[in-house]
Amino acid sequence: MHTDLVAALDIGGTKIAGALVDGRGRILARAQRPTPAQEDGETVMRAVEAVLGELRGSPLWRSARAVGIGSAGPVDASAGTVSPVNVPGWRDYPLVARVRDEAGGLPVELIGDGVAITAAEHWQGAARGHDNALCMVVSTGVGGGLVLGGRLHPGPTGNAGHIGHISVDLDGDPCPCGSRGCVERIASGPNIARRALADGWRPGPDGDASAAAVATAARAGDPVAAASFERAARALAAGIAATATLVEIDIAVIGGGVGKAGEILLAPLRRALAEYATLSFVRRLVVAPARMGTDAGLVGAAAAALARRADTAALGV
Amino acid sequence: MHTDLVAALDIGGTKIAGALVDGRGRILARAQRPTPAQEDGETVMRAVEAVLGELRGSPLWRSARAVGIGSAGPVDASAGTVSPVNVPGWRDYPLVARVRDEAGGLPVELIGDGVAITAAEHWQGAARGHDNALCMVVSTGVGGGLVLGGRLHPGPTGNAGHIGHISVDLDGDPCPCGSRGCVERIASGPNIARRALADGWRPGPDGDASAAAVATAARAGDPVAAASFERAARALAAGIAATATLVEIDIAVIGGGVGKAGEILLAPLRRALAEYATLSFVRRLVVAPARMGTDAGLVGAAAAALARRADTAALGV
Repeated sequence: MHTDLVAALDIGGTKIAGALVDGRGRILARAQRPTPAQEDGETVMRAVEAVLGELRGSPLWRSARAVGIGSAGPVDASAGTVSPVNVPGWRDYPLVARVRDEAGGLPVELIGDGVAITAAEHWQGAARGHDNALCMVVSTGVGGGLVLGGRLHPGPTGNAGHIGHISVDLDGDPCPCGSRGCVERIASGPNIARRALADGWRPGPDGDASAAAVATAARAGDPVAAASFERAARALAAGIAATATLVEIDIAVIGGGVGKAGEILLAPLRRALAEYATLSFVRRLVVAPARMGTDAGLVGAAAAALARRADTAALGV
Repeated sequence: MHTDLVAALDIGGTKIAGALVDGRGRILARAQRPTPAQEDGETVMRAVEAVLGELRGSPLWRSARAVGIGSAGPVDASAGTVSPVNVPGWRDYPLVARVRDEAGGLPVELIGDGVAITAAEHWQGAARGHDNALCMVVSTGVGGGLVLGGRLHPGPTGNAGHIGHISVDLDGDPCPCGSRGCVERIASGPNIARRALADGWRPGPDGDASAAAVATAARAGDPVAAASFERAARALAAGIAATATLVEIDIAVIGGGVGKAGEILLAPLRRALAEYATLSFVRRLVVAPARMGTDAGLVGAAAAALARRADTAALGV
């Protein structure tokens, strides 16, 4: 019996992953295609159709009751469209209607990828049991999502929790988003590496100039490399403290490639958080590393579809 | 028939106001005392008791079903305590239990004053009909509150929406709260006046060096005075944009004494908001002046008590 199976899609700039997921979050079938990110919109959609077609070939498909999509953003859940920055062929692309057609009319729930990761961490990961949480991905970009009052808070368009693009330095460097001093502009992997290089850090013989290489150098005692992580930690702390001060969260979960840098990031982050999170009701806030792995996007998309089904059932419709 | 009357208390550093309010937000009885803010906690409580005693003397009191309190913060709704910055005699003071005793055991709902103003603006003011709103008071301090998904979002401790103490300048000036570069540190009335004076503005013959006097000078064409308001507007815009990017709001309502400065604040605020609120889902955000007057705190405290009663009724308890 799989009365609560849902299909999940995790759509990013590199790959399109799909799965059939049960009510406990177990992945029972999988499919995946590379994202033809630079092709036209219909070509990208054919890759989504190939993933869905493979899932429909599973004998479990007939138990699927809904489809959850976590997509690179921005998304517009109210319109059912997506405009992923890294997929230029999709602008206001009607993904929900297209997926609904491909899925035989099943209800489709769309959320941003940061919201999906958050749903997964809240369901089964580091934010489990926390009614008010911020979950972040610190990687090539900085994304996130919120749990408020025990429930996922996607916001009306599915984009809430976009902590990477809040300004913590109103006179700071221009960000590609058009604003200035955004958390992502200071704390993303490429910006950690860029700042280290600008301040005189040099990669080793292998030429690796990534944030991971900067982390290795920082662990080995390089002060310029460590300072670049400290600056990133300070921006993340200001952003996390702002979030806690605005909506009251008790945990911030940090994942993604930069998040995996461990104490070289987390130790200065905890110190900086004590500086910025000063009001009585935010002082107990804790920071924890993410626990979900590469399936977080799929599991979170499934969670959103299941939560919507539960709401709908509770409403008697 | 007044089956839905509630008592409301608005507790600030200057006055303690009370009222009996009906289900449409009309104030049917009032009482008020000055806050003996520098006295010991029991003396302050006696002023609250005097206000409640006067309300209990009204023939309408027997229709009161709950008490709503909006208090200067921080508050702790989960513990039922308050620790108003400007009332040093109250630290973790058990206000909810004390008011419940004075009110014959009626249920008591506690929220912060920024949350109360927000409840009032959402019920009857500029945020009416908006499911996702930030309401702010820009005055001696900068406070606020949030409506999310059509409902007030006080947060677990009743303090959510504290936009005055998010940092928009992570290397900025120290704030009395212990953090740096807070919105309040840049945009409050005293800081607008302080910055204008530091940059060379001088008050007129009446010696008035308040933010209101700076606003008058700015309207008369004084560039230093105008620049101080522009800087405040920039900090407010960064904070509002951060809020919209984090939780998706479609309106920011601005009240308080500085908010009343009008276009000398709002025009540069709208310009700066276009710079900081860049993502697709926050671009439609509008800024509007507050519509509720000096009764906003009372009306909002009543709204919170009525909303809690409605929730409780819906749960069948």
